[in-house]
Amino acid sequence: MDETERKHSEKFDELKTYLDNGDTFKFRKTYLDMHFYDQSTFYLSLKKDERLKLYDILRPNEMGDMFDTIEDELPEIPEFLDEMDVKYASKMLNYMYDDNAADVLEHMDKTHVDQFLSEMPTSDANNLRGLLHYDTETAGGIMTTDFVQFDQEITAGQAIKNLRQFAETAETIYYLYILDENKDLVGVMSLRDLIMQKSQTVLKTVMNTDLITVNVDDEQAEVAQVFRSYEFLACPVVDHSNKLVGIVTVDDVIEVIDDEAQQDYSGLAGVDVDESINDNPFKAASKRLPWLITLLLLSMITATLVNRYEGLLAQASILAVFISTITGTAGNAGTQSLAVAVRRLAIDEIDRSDFFKLLGKELLTGLFTGVVTGVSIFLLVGFWKHNFVLGLVIGLAMCAAITVANVAGSFIPMLMSRLGFDPAVASGPFISTLSDLTSVLIYFSIAGMFLQYFVGS
Amino acid sequence: MDETERKHSEKFDELKTYLDNGDTFKFRKTYLDMHFYDQSTFYLSLKKDERLKLYDILRPNEMGDMFDTIEDELPEIPEFLDEMDVKYASKMLNYMYDDNAADVLEHMDKTHVDQFLSEMPTSDANNLRGLLHYDTETAGGIMTTDFVQFDQEITAGQAIKNLRQFAETAETIYYLYILDENKDLVGVMSLRDLIMQKSQTVLKTVMNTDLITVNVDDEQAEVAQVFRSYEFLACPVVDHSNKLVGIVTVDDVIEVIDDEAQQDYSGLAGVDVDESINDNPFKAASKRLPWLITLLLLSMITATLVNRYEGLLAQASILAVFISTITGTAGNAGTQSLAVAVRRLAIDEIDRSDFFKLLGKELLTGLFTGVVTGVSIFLLVGFWKHNFVLGLVIGLAMCAAITVANVAGSFIPMLMSRLGFDPAVASGPFISTLSDLTSVLIYFSIAGMFLQYFVGS
Repeated sequence: MDETERKHSEKFDELKTYLDNGDTFKFRKTYLDMHFYDQSTFYLSLKKDERLKLYDILRPNEMGDMFDTIEDELPEIPEFLDEMDVKYASKMLNYMYDDNAADVLEHMDKTHVDQFLSEMPTSDANNLRGLLHYDTETAGGIMTTDFVQFDQEITAGQAIKNLRQFAETAETIYYLYILDENKDLVGVMSLRDLIMQKSQTVLKTVMNTDLITVNVDDEQAEVAQVFRSYEFLACPVVDHSNKLVGIVTVDDVIEVIDDEAQQDYSGLAGVDVDESINDNPFKAASKRLPWLITLLLLSMITATLVNRYEGLLAQASILAVFISTITGTAGNAGTQSLAVAVRRLAIDEIDRSDFFKLLGKELLTGLFTGVVTGVSIFLLVGFWKHNFVLGLVIGLAMCAAITVANVAGSFIPMLMSRLGFDPAVASGPFISTLSDLTSVLIYFSIAGMFLQYFVGS
Repeated sequence: MDETERKHSEKFDELKTYLDNGDTFKFRKTYLDMHFYDQSTFYLSLKKDERLKLYDILRPNEMGDMFDTIEDELPEIPEFLDEMDVKYASKMLNYMYDDNAADVLEHMDKTHVDQFLSEMPTSDANNLRGLLHYDTETAGGIMTTDFVQFDQEITAGQAIKNLRQFAETAETIYYLYILDENKDLVGVMSLRDLIMQKSQTVLKTVMNTDLITVNVDDEQAEVAQVFRSYEFLACPVVDHSNKLVGIVTVDDVIEVIDDEAQQDYSGLAGVDVDESINDNPFKAASKRLPWLITLLLLSMITATLVNRYEGLLAQASILAVFISTITGTAGNAGTQSLAVAVRRLAIDEIDRSDFFKLLGKELLTGLFTGVVTGVSIFLLVGFWKHNFVLGLVIGLAMCAAITVANVAGSFIPMLMSRLGFDPAVASGPFISTLSDLTSVLIYFSIAGMFLQYFVGS
């Protein structure tokens, strides 16, 4: 990769020289020979005055090809479009694949969107408006309407000939969607299957009619699951009357998979890990503080609870020694159980009978881990303090605290999912703070019961 | 999706009836019309005696198409191959895409592998042996050697004609890899570009020569990054002398992305979340216990530390009330900082100058969050206990503990990455247990300094 990077930076220097010297011809030749992604890396390395030169040198469609690969969440995109001439920007957006254009417009304010759309041919503008209506995290939000469709009565030879007309605009030409006379989707064929056919074969006799489709309102995570299973490069999207309205392509699915993984990871950590490397410490802190302060308040309930046992602590200050061991270990167990539950919920829907089965399983897992951990600390404390009653108190408390944390770690995300919330919102820090509370309660209750037996023994 | 599931289960019932009645013709017709993935779902729903019938009814290539979609980690795969006739299994493996066949063989013992390979034509066996040599988590480990290659001197028309010969065996025909007379990779072309060409155009005049390749030893995570950036459907893999040895296809990259996300998530949680839904509680507990017990031992160091302050605690049992608040909150902050650092390391290589810059940034972020959280708890404790000296002790300790946890959460994964370890191994539970130790040390040191001012005041 380093070799590639070096080559890139040399090429970028070359391009900048051409740009500075106004050597349009050489610039275009070098620039347009590069991959769109490399073009975008170059573009993003430019200063504003250099970018302005680029808009003069490149046609809107050439700019559009490159913009198709720019990460749509890039916060600078509205700024880039602002510095372009409105007509130029509008043409560029129109040349882009419509799902990408819609993603860009998603991040602009309404006035700008209307401005750009008003410069486009009405049908294209309406098309984009349609896409903007879908929820961003659904099949409709990630689909493109630039796909290849054929009538089922044409032949393979005609289809191959007609493909050329699509190759300019369609986001993929590797799947052909085949419609009947009512414009209903009746079949699909890969280009690979198509080129294997004799040229006089009629599509409807060879097309694949076992259709796998997603609905326009399906969650993007469900769409990703279809791609994982069937190893599709694209998948048709239908509306409620089963009409074909678009297709989702695999490049967008990769983005979805990354997004979903990021969300799960962030949920577990209790922080948006998308936090940019360039965020200044103030900004980073302000993103992390809301959760921290919320959890601090929750942990104050734990403190008031311990406070109620101050009498007990005054009699047996040794108890304080093991508070963090018990809360910490139970918190760790709860985090494990939480992560397993959240991951399972991401893969499977869990119905009512599973719900109790899983909870029962997690209860047993908690009990086993609790017993092993409890016995370990019983021995450690017993031998260390030469006080096996104290060891028993700590061991019992540990066992109970771990069991409760395990069940909570599993129950809370499953409950949230049942109530229609994202289970990943139940973060690791939340579970471990909550488990501090139950652990402390368990610990002091048990210690209170045994107080007379271990103090001074 | 429910509609689809209902349709599937009806079809599966139909298929089972055909299988039971020995209605081979109807079975084959219905079964072979299904998507390979649906075939595999059906296959996995069968009992052993039913599967044995299937091997009689389906040819090895038909079985191979279905096995190409079976998740390669499926623990039952060795069992399935064992119950097949060796010749049948060997033919099936030979029909499969070689990357998938290699994945399957990866999970079998050496005797079986040799048995299967000895039944194959020597060249195919050697090819598979070659693939088995690569580390599974590298480009070599996920690539296929079933790809389309052409000489640069042929025309577009010839290429399209010749494509049919590849369409049977190549894993994708949507990219053509173009070689010179030394068999060196000199260009690439998509099928989309190819069908846009006039049939007499010579490939070398229109092929894309700005080659993006990965090296056979590149980590699979780097390969995934190339696919994300360039939105490829396939990417050529070269060896050290820059010869084309295989290609990676996007379906395998999706698996890689899922695997990597799973690993990061598991690391953060301190448990392998791949833990199957069907693991019994004993097995689940045995997977979680090693980490828990390790961390328990670490937390015992914290306990011995608190133990040294037992005198202090005996004089001021109120201090015990806030132990879990301070350790818990600092642990939460450390987990946040850890997650951000691990995520950043997954995206960027961090060099030496970044290292200190990032650490400095995390120090400041820790200070800001620490000050805000510290002031909050200072006020909470001050007003609750009518003791602002105690509030100050707790506030200062909180601020310092959070700052230290933040820096540790960032430093430890960065250090591990520098030392060549996977930073994701530094789990959330590890950081929060470690942070318990530092937090307790900070807390009691500060409390000791102020003891005379808050006790009894």
